[in-house]
Amino acid sequence: MDENTRTVVELVTETDLSGRDDLTGQAGKAFLDYLAALFAARREPAVRRLLPGIRRGRPEDKALAYGFASHYLDYDDAQANIAGHFSTVLYSALLAAARPEDTVRDFLAAYVAGAELEGLLGACLNPAHRQQGWHSTGTIGPLGAAAAIIRLRHLSGEQAAMVLSLAATQSSGMAFEAGSDGKPLHAGFAASHALAAWRLVAEYGLSARTNIFQDETGWLAVFSNGQQRFDEASWRRCWLQPGQILEPGLWMKRHRYCSAAICAADGAAKLYEQGVRLGDISRVLIHFPPGADRALRYEKPQTGREGQFSAEYVVWQILAHGGIDDAYFQLPEVPAEFLAALPKFQRVYDVGKLPLSVRAVPVTAIMKDGTRHHIDIRDPQGSPANPLTLAQEEEKVSAAWESPLAARLIHEVRGWPSGTIGPCLTMIEGVIFDEVIE
Amino acid sequence: MDENTRTVVELVTETDLSGRDDLTGQAGKAFLDYLAALFAARREPAVRRLLPGIRRGRPEDKALAYGFASHYLDYDDAQANIAGHFSTVLYSALLAAARPEDTVRDFLAAYVAGAELEGLLGACLNPAHRQQGWHSTGTIGPLGAAAAIIRLRHLSGEQAAMVLSLAATQSSGMAFEAGSDGKPLHAGFAASHALAAWRLVAEYGLSARTNIFQDETGWLAVFSNGQQRFDEASWRRCWLQPGQILEPGLWMKRHRYCSAAICAADGAAKLYEQGVRLGDISRVLIHFPPGADRALRYEKPQTGREGQFSAEYVVWQILAHGGIDDAYFQLPEVPAEFLAALPKFQRVYDVGKLPLSVRAVPVTAIMKDGTRHHIDIRDPQGSPANPLTLAQEEEKVSAAWESPLAARLIHEVRGWPSGTIGPCLTMIEGVIFDEVIE
Repeated sequence: MDENTRTVVELVTETDLSGRDDLTGQAGKAFLDYLAALFAARREPAVRRLLPGIRRGRPEDKALAYGFASHYLDYDDAQANIAGHFSTVLYSALLAAARPEDTVRDFLAAYVAGAELEGLLGACLNPAHRQQGWHSTGTIGPLGAAAAIIRLRHLSGEQAAMVLSLAATQSSGMAFEAGSDGKPLHAGFAASHALAAWRLVAEYGLSARTNIFQDETGWLAVFSNGQQRFDEASWRRCWLQPGQILEPGLWMKRHRYCSAAICAADGAAKLYEQGVRLGDISRVLIHFPPGADRALRYEKPQTGREGQFSAEYVVWQILAHGGIDDAYFQLPEVPAEFLAALPKFQRVYDVGKLPLSVRAVPVTAIMKDGTRHHIDIRDPQGSPANPLTLAQEEEKVSAAWESPLAARLIHEVRGWPSGTIGPCLTMIEGVIFDEVIE
Repeated sequence: MDENTRTVVELVTETDLSGRDDLTGQAGKAFLDYLAALFAARREPAVRRLLPGIRRGRPEDKALAYGFASHYLDYDDAQANIAGHFSTVLYSALLAAARPEDTVRDFLAAYVAGAELEGLLGACLNPAHRQQGWHSTGTIGPLGAAAAIIRLRHLSGEQAAMVLSLAATQSSGMAFEAGSDGKPLHAGFAASHALAAWRLVAEYGLSARTNIFQDETGWLAVFSNGQQRFDEASWRRCWLQPGQILEPGLWMKRHRYCSAAICAADGAAKLYEQGVRLGDISRVLIHFPPGADRALRYEKPQTGREGQFSAEYVVWQILAHGGIDDAYFQLPEVPAEFLAALPKFQRVYDVGKLPLSVRAVPVTAIMKDGTRHHIDIRDPQGSPANPLTLAQEEEKVSAAWESPLAARLIHEVRGWPSGTIGPCLTMIEGVIFDEVIE
């Protein structure tokens, strides 16, 4: 094992949340947010078609199903350093690797360890990684998921490094899949591949090289074409200081569209509040820093699903109807009304380059009478600086499950971090597998 | 679907071996070579440990087992454009996707289509891809395997493109795994991921983007960081002209070590034939073009398995004992005798840069009396210009299976390309699953 890999393994295996109520609380909130995304997707036709092929007794399969479903609606949390989705991969892997007797404290520490590794790796590689066309949820996700499994199952040393290694060498996922089932599959694959890495090493006794982060030909070197090196001192200094889920923090969503459009959406909502209406507008400018609309691939979406990755579709809903209705993202074809309004919309790239953790997507409405309304919301609701409350997260879970049983699950999570994960495992499996496969 | 992807799908689905006895014959020979590699590994402890976790009725699992086993000993064929291994991924995927009633003609055409796609993609990306630290067997393999499945199962149009897409977005595998079980797992993963791509689309009705080879953010652009574009005219001109398995052709092995050392091994054998003996040598120079020893990662191997990727270990066996004994590659520790001789060996990088398809690893023996013997074998036995004969391939299968039943399988393949693949499927499954799991 090289020194860099040894450092990572140490940091992961020694992650401990004692005295860190901030991390514990945020991890619990992220869990509720994850459940809302998972439950909300369970009756989607694609999820229902996939589930019969899943053997729930097989951890890789369960991780694939949970990952696919929880990222399916793009309703799950995102993070700036990874420039992708976080909890969908981590909690899907953990739910598949957990045993009923595992303590909640271990479960949450495992999540935090995985999230920390992902965020720090993301900070090393991005924005170049994303700009090159990689989908970090799939490429960085397996390492985070493997770290989480390592911490949960108390692996250590060579064995831990081998699990990380087999996850690292399965890093994959390209951004061109956005708008298709390929994108949520990346989350499922990432979680599933980490489970496979764990079982191949721990159950089947297969080996892997443990020089994962060596500078010449290691994981970072391969993905950055030799540009990025592992800075051990910096890793030790940054690890959980304060923690990637706190700083830059998690973006949690109220609606089911790509988080790159959230600032624009809140800006549009503010304009609507001020009386601006689409009918009176001649042009809508959506302003981006160069390249910041990469995830928003569809300027002219044809389907509701493509509309999840379209700033135009999101802003249009708000300026035309006063708010987002998630049903618009499920339409097989976007409404004619939207297509008729589309020529009014234009993307402009006149916002300066910003740090990874800062988002700005101002909106300008140019009215038919020539007046202009410009708005620049930096901390929209759900952003790290303006987070959803715990009550809002609980409400998301209830709304997504649509069952009185949701109260039991929420009650269980309110008791965290004491107790074991068992009761949650049973309820979640029930929602996804028993309710859906009828 | 973009035009580039449409071209690839057309070329794959329309692949037809009528009147191409050259391709048919070479594909059949590659099949025998594949079987020898697969059978030879079936009693390896790692293979035996993996098999109980495999459900043979599940195509992804079967592909993983076949891919892992057939690449396990590094005894399987390689190709210059992909700079990696070919048949291990393709035939493992095909055996897992085939139905007994499939014709041998379709089976071989599917192999040829997959091989062609892999070779042409490899030619686009290499040598930069390999130098960056990717293991092409894992990164390019899934696309070839998906193409083979598409041709075998007669998929077409959008559906074919979606299968290719979900395979492409699972491209993964890093060269740092060489010398561990991670490397043969890459072959298994590649085959398995292609099977998963097929089933997710064809059985579960999931979708994927079909703009796989578009120039801006497609597969080639992502892996080459925008350097490589798809040249449609060139693809149409090169496809099966004469065919990647004929030109640059396949390297097939007599022994179980990395093909990058074969030229040096044949050179050493020639020296031994001329009376040169290790005891009389003061230094052995192994000459490489710059970077051509990348796959030979171990200058000082510690285990027999690392020795498979060590030119020193290979050349030492020949100069010390007159030939290769594959048992040396299974030793838990290399012999003390080798370690004592190791200081005599030196790699030098004084061979000029060569085209991808040309290999040269000359060997110089500097004798204790000061005389020098230099030998440069360009077309060693098993290389495309000096291929193993069909009889030698049949002998490899017999030696690897070590059963009188091998004659039945060889007889079956002699009858190709008429008939169906069914009898072979049954026999191969029997060898791997029934014989091994006792």
